[in-house]
Amino acid sequence: MMNDHETIYIGGEWMAAATTDFYRSVDPTSGEAFGPNFPVSAWEDLDAALAWGGASPGADQCAQLLEKYAELIEANAEALAQIAQRETGLPAEGRFKNTEIPRTTNQLRQAAAQARSLDFQLATIDTKLNIRSCLESMGAVLIFGPANFPFAYNAVAGGDFASAIAAGNSVIARAHPSHPQTTLALMKLLVQAANDVGLEAPPVQLLFGFSNDDGLRLARSRKINAIGFTGSRAGGLALKASADTVGTPFFGELSSINPVVITPEALAENHDAIVDQYVSSVLLACGQMCTNPGIVFLVKSEETSRFIDSVVVKFNAGAPGVLLNEGMLKGLAANVARVKDAGAMLLCGGTRAESPAFRYKNTALSVTDSAFIRNAQTFQLEMFGNACLFVVCSSMAAMMNALRLLEGNLCGSLYLAEGQTDAPEARILSAVLREKVGRLLNDKMPTGVAVTSAMNHGGPYPATGHVHFTAVGFPAAVRRFTRLNCYDNVRPELLPAVLRNDNPTRAWRMVDGEWTRDAIGGKR
Amino acid sequence: MMNDHETIYIGGEWMAAATTDFYRSVDPTSGEAFGPNFPVSAWEDLDAALAWGGASPGADQCAQLLEKYAELIEANAEALAQIAQRETGLPAEGRFKNTEIPRTTNQLRQAAAQARSLDFQLATIDTKLNIRSCLESMGAVLIFGPANFPFAYNAVAGGDFASAIAAGNSVIARAHPSHPQTTLALMKLLVQAANDVGLEAPPVQLLFGFSNDDGLRLARSRKINAIGFTGSRAGGLALKASADTVGTPFFGELSSINPVVITPEALAENHDAIVDQYVSSVLLACGQMCTNPGIVFLVKSEETSRFIDSVVVKFNAGAPGVLLNEGMLKGLAANVARVKDAGAMLLCGGTRAESPAFRYKNTALSVTDSAFIRNAQTFQLEMFGNACLFVVCSSMAAMMNALRLLEGNLCGSLYLAEGQTDAPEARILSAVLREKVGRLLNDKMPTGVAVTSAMNHGGPYPATGHVHFTAVGFPAAVRRFTRLNCYDNVRPELLPAVLRNDNPTRAWRMVDGEWTRDAIGGKR
Repeated sequence: MMNDHETIYIGGEWMAAATTDFYRSVDPTSGEAFGPNFPVSAWEDLDAALAWGGASPGADQCAQLLEKYAELIEANAEALAQIAQRETGLPAEGRFKNTEIPRTTNQLRQAAAQARSLDFQLATIDTKLNIRSCLESMGAVLIFGPANFPFAYNAVAGGDFASAIAAGNSVIARAHPSHPQTTLALMKLLVQAANDVGLEAPPVQLLFGFSNDDGLRLARSRKINAIGFTGSRAGGLALKASADTVGTPFFGELSSINPVVITPEALAENHDAIVDQYVSSVLLACGQMCTNPGIVFLVKSEETSRFIDSVVVKFNAGAPGVLLNEGMLKGLAANVARVKDAGAMLLCGGTRAESPAFRYKNTALSVTDSAFIRNAQTFQLEMFGNACLFVVCSSMAAMMNALRLLEGNLCGSLYLAEGQTDAPEARILSAVLREKVGRLLNDKMPTGVAVTSAMNHGGPYPATGHVHFTAVGFPAAVRRFTRLNCYDNVRPELLPAVLRNDNPTRAWRMVDGEWTRDAIGGKR
Repeated sequence: MMNDHETIYIGGEWMAAATTDFYRSVDPTSGEAFGPNFPVSAWEDLDAALAWGGASPGADQCAQLLEKYAELIEANAEALAQIAQRETGLPAEGRFKNTEIPRTTNQLRQAAAQARSLDFQLATIDTKLNIRSCLESMGAVLIFGPANFPFAYNAVAGGDFASAIAAGNSVIARAHPSHPQTTLALMKLLVQAANDVGLEAPPVQLLFGFSNDDGLRLARSRKINAIGFTGSRAGGLALKASADTVGTPFFGELSSINPVVITPEALAENHDAIVDQYVSSVLLACGQMCTNPGIVFLVKSEETSRFIDSVVVKFNAGAPGVLLNEGMLKGLAANVARVKDAGAMLLCGGTRAESPAFRYKNTALSVTDSAFIRNAQTFQLEMFGNACLFVVCSSMAAMMNALRLLEGNLCGSLYLAEGQTDAPEARILSAVLREKVGRLLNDKMPTGVAVTSAMNHGGPYPATGHVHFTAVGFPAAVRRFTRLNCYDNVRPELLPAVLRNDNPTRAWRMVDGEWTRDAIGGKR
C-alpha cells in the first residue's frame, strides 16, 4: 500500500515534512493526477536540511557509494523506467531503459572514477618552494533538477549530483515536481547503496518542493557553497541573483535555442539528409531537449524554400508528442504566440493538438533577417517543445548580421559544403557562431550530448551562469563544485592525499610544470 | 616640458579626454600635488573605449609584445622606480627596482610563455568521437589596478593585464589615481613595445579615471566579457553586483585580514623568531599588502602576553611608514576607531603620526575571544595599513570557535610546534582555517606571494569574487580570462591551433584521458 503523504529525507532519516501543502504526480498523456502526495516544504524543513550541511564521507567511500548506486539503478531499471514513463510521457524502453538510464549509470561510474583517481583536482606542485595546490570540495551544494531528464539530470542521480558527490560535497536536492515518484524511487536506492557500502546514510538531503521565496532564501544561505541548476531562464536567473548577493557560485543551465546555420552549398549537396537530421533532432523527446535546435538560419533561395517545405511536410505528418506537464504546454503556446505576434509567419501548427492532455501541434514559423534584426530578442524566445523558427536571410552578409545578434547558447551547428571549408564565408560564419555558443558543431545536429572529457555542455550567459564551466563531461563537470586551495609550506601530515609526495591514487599532477602520475622523489 | 592635460589612449591613439574634470598626482610624504593633470573621463570616452572592443593580435604576437614590454620596463627601471616612489612613498630601490619591477617583468614573461605554449588552454581531445575542447579568449576585459602595487598589479602591466593579454583578449584599463604618472610611463613603453614588434598599437585602451556611476555602467556593458579588479571591498562589491546582472565573470580581490594562528607550544619554542617574522610581515610596505597578517589568534598565557608586549615594543620603536594616499589614512583611522569603539583595547598607536602628510602610528589592539564572537564582523574590518588586532582566547577550544566565525580570506598562517603536527588540535585548527582561506601556510607569514604555478592568490568570498580562481601564478591566472569552447566534429581547418592533430606549440593536452605534449597520430 502506498503512503498517502510521502516523507522527505533529512539527516539520514525519512521524516514528515513541516507542511500542509502537497502535490501529486500528473500523467501528461491524460492530465490526471495519480499516486501519493508529495510535500511542498515550509522553511522549517529547509532549515533542517541546511543544519545537516556539509559532512561527506571520504573520496573512497564516495566512489563506492556512486558505483553501488549505479549497480542498483541497473538492477531496477525496468521499474524505474515504468515510473518515469508514467510521470513524463517519454517512452520507458527507447528513451529510459536504452538511453537515459545507461547514460546516468555511466555518469555515476565516471564520477566514481574521478573520486578514486582524484584527477579532477588538477593538483599542482612546485617542489622547490614547497607550494602545492589543488581543487577541493566546497561543502553543501544545492541542486535543482529539470523536468526533462528524470534520470540523467535528476537532483539525486544526475550529472550535477554525481559531480558534487565525487568532489566530496554533500547535496541538498530539490526533486522536480514533474517526476517526484521517480525521484523517490532513486533516493530509496541511494539510501540502500549507502547502507550496502557501510555508510549510515548518503550525504544527501531531499526535498520535494518549496515556495519560490524559500528557494531564493535557500540560495543565499551562507551554508550553501554552490548551486547546480537546470531549468527555466526566469527561475534560474532569480536564483542566480540571490546567490550572487553572497558570492555563491551558480552553475545554471538556463535556456538555449541552439542555432543551426546551413549554407546554400551544403543544402544543395545534402538536402534530404539535412532534412532528416533536422526533423529527428528538433522533434526528439517532443523538442524538450536543452540542445534542441530551435532556430535555423538559411539564405533565401529555391533550395531553402524546398528545405522548409520538406520540414513542414514532416511536421504535419508526424503525430504531436507529449509535453512533460501543463506548464510546458502553456509556456510553449505563450511563446509561439509572442513570436507570431512579433511578425513571424506561421507555417504549420500553432495550436493545441486535439489528442488528450498536454500535446501541441508540431509548429514551424519563419521570419526574414530584417524582421529578426528589428526584434531579435523576441525571436530568440525559447519555444521549449516541438516548435522552431526559420530565419530566411536575403544574403550571406545579411545572415552574418543576424547571427551577430544571437544571445549566448549551448550549441551552434554549422553545415558546410564538402570542400568549402576554406571559403572565407565558412571562416566568418564559424567565428561569428563560435562567440555565441559553448559547443560548435559541423555538419551534425546538437542533440545527443556525449559524456566525454572533451564535451562542453555550457556556454555564454544567459545559456548558463558561467562561461568557464561545463555540466557534462568528466573531470570538468566535477570541477564546478570545487574551490582552489593552496598549501604553502604545509606539513606533510596536514596535506590532502593528492598533494602528498607519494601520490597514492596516481592522480595526474602538474609537478614543476610537467604533467605526471609519478610520485615525487622517484618513479613508484 | 610636460603637458598640462594628459591624454587617454583609445583605438591606438593618444587623445584628449571628453571632460573638464582633472586630478594630479599627490606626493604622500608631503601631501602636495605635482605633475600634469589627468582626466576623469565622461561616459563618451568609455563608450569610445568599448567601441574598440575585443580585437587582439594572435598568440604569437601577444607573446612578442609581452616580452618586448618586459625588456623595455627593465631598460627604464630606474626612471620608473623614481616616478613610482614619488607617487606612492614606497622606496625606489628596495621596493621597486629590486622587488616589484623584477616581479612584474617575470610575470610578463611567464604570461608570454603561456601565449607561446598554449598550456593554459587545458586542451582536451576525445579522438574516437572527434570532440575537442579548450579554454579560449573572451574579448574585452576590464581591469582596475589597485593603489598598492603600481607595477605588479598595474592595469597596464600587472598580473591581470598580462593574463588577459596572454589569453588573447583586449584590455580596457583604468589607471589607479594614486599613481597616474607611473601608469602613463608604463603605457608609453607598452605602445613602444607594440611598435617594436610590428603592431600598430597594443590591444589596450587606457583611461585615467571616471565616475563611480560610469564604472558601474561600464561593468554591465555587454561589450565587457570579464572584469579583473583589485581594491576595496565596497568598490569591488558594487562592480561585482553590476557585472552579475549581465552574467559577466568578476574576478576581484577585495579585502583580506589574513589570520595568523599561533599555538602555545609554537610560541614557547620560537618566541623571538615569530615576533620578528610577524613584525616584518605586518609592517611591510606600511601594512599595505593584500596578504597583510592583520589579525592574530592566540591562547591566553604568559607566553602570549610576552609575545604581544614584544610586538608592541617593536611597533613603538619603528617609525610609522607612509600611507599611499589620503583615502588610506582616513580609512585606516576610521576602521581603527570602529574596532576600538566595539570594545578592542588599544595597545599602541591609534592616532595620526606627527610627521608630515599621510602617516599613522603603528597600531595594535586586542580583544578576547568572547568579545570577538559577539561582534565578529566589526572585528574583521580590514584596517588597511600599519595596524593589527590580537584575539586572545581563553582556551584552544575557544580559539577554534572564534576561528569558525572568520569570513573568507586570501591567506591563513598556522604556527605549530615541532613534532606537534599529528596532535588532534593541529588537525582541527588546520581544517577550520583551511575552510576560510585560499592559501594555508605553516610556520611562515603570508606576505611575499611567489609567482609559481602552485600559488593561489584567491580565496572564499568576500576575499575574492570567485573561489575557483587565482590572480597570481601561471597558467591558472590566465584561465580566469577564458571561456570553455568545444569543437564537435569541426573541420580541421576551422580548429584553433591547440586542438589540431599536429599540436604545433607542443602544448600539454589531455588526449583520451592522458596528458601529453605529443601530436595525435604519432610522436613528432
